[in-house]
Amino acid sequence: MPGLAITLTTDFGDTSPYVAVMKGVILAINPGARLVDLTHQIPPQDIQHAAFFLRTAIPYFPPETLHVVVVDPGVGTDRAILHVEGQRHRLLAPDNGCWTLVPGIDKACVRHVTSRQFFRPQVSNTFHGRDIFAPVAAYLSRGLDPALLGPVVSQWIELQLPAPRVDKRSVAGEVIFVDRFGNLLTNIPAELVGGEPTSLKIGRRSLRRGFRWVKSYGEAKPGDLVALISSDSHVEVAVVQGNAAQKLRAAAGTPIRLEWKRAEPR
Amino acid sequence: MPGLAITLTTDFGDTSPYVAVMKGVILAINPGARLVDLTHQIPPQDIQHAAFFLRTAIPYFPPETLHVVVVDPGVGTDRAILHVEGQRHRLLAPDNGCWTLVPGIDKACVRHVTSRQFFRPQVSNTFHGRDIFAPVAAYLSRGLDPALLGPVVSQWIELQLPAPRVDKRSVAGEVIFVDRFGNLLTNIPAELVGGEPTSLKIGRRSLRRGFRWVKSYGEAKPGDLVALISSDSHVEVAVVQGNAAQKLRAAAGTPIRLEWKRAEPR
Amino acid sequence: MPGLAITLTTDFGDTSPYVAVMKGVILAINPGARLVDLTHQIPPQDIQHAAFFLRTAIPYFPPETLHVVVVDPGVGTDRAILHVEGQRHRLLAPDNGCWTLVPGIDKACVRHVTSRQFFRPQVSNTFHGRDIFAPVAAYLSRGLDPALLGPVVSQWIELQLPAPRVDKRSVAGEVIFVDRFGNLLTNIPAELVGGEPTSLKIGRRSLRRGFRWVKSYGEAKPGDLVALISSDSHVEVAVVQGNAAQKLRAAAGTPIRLEWKRAEPR
Repeated sequence: MPGLAITLTTDFGDTSPYVAVMKGVILAINPGARLVDLTHQIPPQDIQHAAFFLRTAIPYFPPETLHVVVVDPGVGTDRAILHVEGQRHRLLAPDNGCWTLVPGIDKACVRHVTSRQFFRPQVSNTFHGRDIFAPVAAYLSRGLDPALLGPVVSQWIELQLPAPRVDKRSVAGEVIFVDRFGNLLTNIPAELVGGEPTSLKIGRRSLRRGFRWVKSYGEAKPGDLVALISSDSHVEVAVVQGNAAQKLRAAAGTPIRLEWKRAEPR
Repeated sequence: MPGLAITLTTDFGDTSPYVAVMKGVILAINPGARLVDLTHQIPPQDIQHAAFFLRTAIPYFPPETLHVVVVDPGVGTDRAILHVEGQRHRLLAPDNGCWTLVPGIDKACVRHVTSRQFFRPQVSNTFHGRDIFAPVAAYLSRGLDPALLGPVVSQWIELQLPAPRVDKRSVAGEVIFVDRFGNLLTNIPAELVGGEPTSLKIGRRSLRRGFRWVKSYGEAKPGDLVALISSDSHVEVAVVQGNAAQKLRAAAGTPIRLEWKRAEPR
Repeated sequence: MPGLAITLTTDFGDTSPYVAVMKGVILAINPGARLVDLTHQIPPQDIQHAAFFLRTAIPYFPPETLHVVVVDPGVGTDRAILHVEGQRHRLLAPDNGCWTLVPGIDKACVRHVTSRQFFRPQVSNTFHGRDIFAPVAAYLSRGLDPALLGPVVSQWIELQLPAPRVDKRSVAGEVIFVDRFGNLLTNIPAELVGGEPTSLKIGRRSLRRGFRWVKSYGEAKPGDLVALISSDSHVEVAVVQGNAAQKLRAAAGTPIRLEWKRAEPR
């Protein structure tokens, strides 16, 4: 019986002691806690980045996992802390929308975490990761009933991805994430690509011969600019064994548009 | 009975294989060892940074933890390696003072680690993390009696934080740590702030209206420069949802001074 | 019985969600899996860096470890995925040579991983870490017989380190790795240094008085340029408590040459 694993996702970085502090607080309450680092390199206070990260990663975890998320620019304001219990996933996160893009999470049971007996005795105004998130997670990993954390609520902040715009011969969207390889991940789902794209517009650049629509990187040569369906079933723009973000000077928010000649089955 | 967890704090970074090597050595001796990464991003050979990191993080861990610290510019000299057994915390660290700011550690039982039967058979001159720290930690996690490691000693290198200077209307200290958010953490404890500060001097800048003394970030707007009591009960200077270190061009060592009009209870 | 630990070595970095995804897939199949991060900071698609990293780190791990390596510029081509079972070490890695410098691994039993029943049901063209490496590793950690993964093969891509050239009074090689401290690790093994070096040539610089041949950093002063035998038994060039790579503008591939006056026992 391995028990409830606790994953940690923060923007604390690795030079600051804050992640270590949280691990200490958790282990002091549950010395047998199983800690899994997801990342501590969310850009500081970047809720959009965290939301994309969680949307991508959380679906693969088993239900017996508690995902603790401390990307929390609102610490010290009256923003709530939420316990989210979906059918397949459980999170502890600030009420800033960072968790709301996780697929299927919209039907979750959401609670305000208000029961101070599970907090550290002194709660600071600047480090709720230490004073609230860590101890509550530790008690949950020991079997605490989430119903004791606080009242069920029906309102919270929701993030929304910008919606792509589609017509018969094109689809337009934007880059929503740049990964470490410089691959550009977009908000355009595979099913909106109605034919084999012959033109790619990205930012101010318009490409016809300068890119190839492929099924895998292996169809092109190193250095080639390609567009393809990502492992996440969305349009991705990449340079094979290179860095598309640098080559195209693209970043999260850069507009992208694909055009094709006529509708055809994919 | 989860056993003694081993935390690792180093300046080895993540591109070099040295952390992995240490994990391998530990697991080869104790395959069931529970490893907890605190950080491997201490700036190279920065004992002061390590000392602040440890001072902040170690107090939160339970006693059944062994903290292994390899920030060791003196490797290859005759500096000693110490086993430190405080009332609440145990460390294995080079004798360079990095552990001596941990609260309450001054009453520890300190040993020179000299018993070569717990080292790797060949001890290099450049990588004691692999050859001494890792195997000794692994044997300790298996229950080795620390008394067998070597003799108790009464002298070691101690770090001291610079002392703040206080009078009736002001307190002066310095920045001792810049966290990932650019927040400036200082050596001025909360209890030395004798009134509500109306003036902040930091480096060469003097601010009156340009900053606010607050209890939490939430009292100010994004972009505001604030001073407050940190989660560690010291004066902190921050830009709400911004980066004070960049804005003020401040770093560890930058002088800071707070003034207030008259003494008043906090 | 702690079971088979799974180590992870990737070039995914920490801002992208790919490592977290892999951990989720593994834990969903084996909730009790023991995960050990080696690094996720291999430079993107840098097989040489990965090969040096693995060569240095893997030997220290116990046999009951499975090393999963996803540095995979060939994803989406027809490159194979290999299960490698040496006498002392087991790896799961793409067939790009990254594992072939591990000492003693040349006598391994190598299989093509082809049995799709251990993959995720849908295998993408761009993320085999999620779809093949992670589930196969999880099943292996639960006790899956590697013989069920696919056929034994006798051919694979092998990396070779450039061979140093030696004569009676000198040895020439190159830098093969720069560590976080800026230390220059070379391909020149200790036993090829036939006398006490009196001259060091590195890149275009020739040094006689500007460096010292030492046995440990402690023989020199901070800031001194030294050459010595590394913890890995090869020639290393370092600046004591400084950064040799910056000082000498050296990187992987920079030529290095040591000369001595006459042969003498080391």
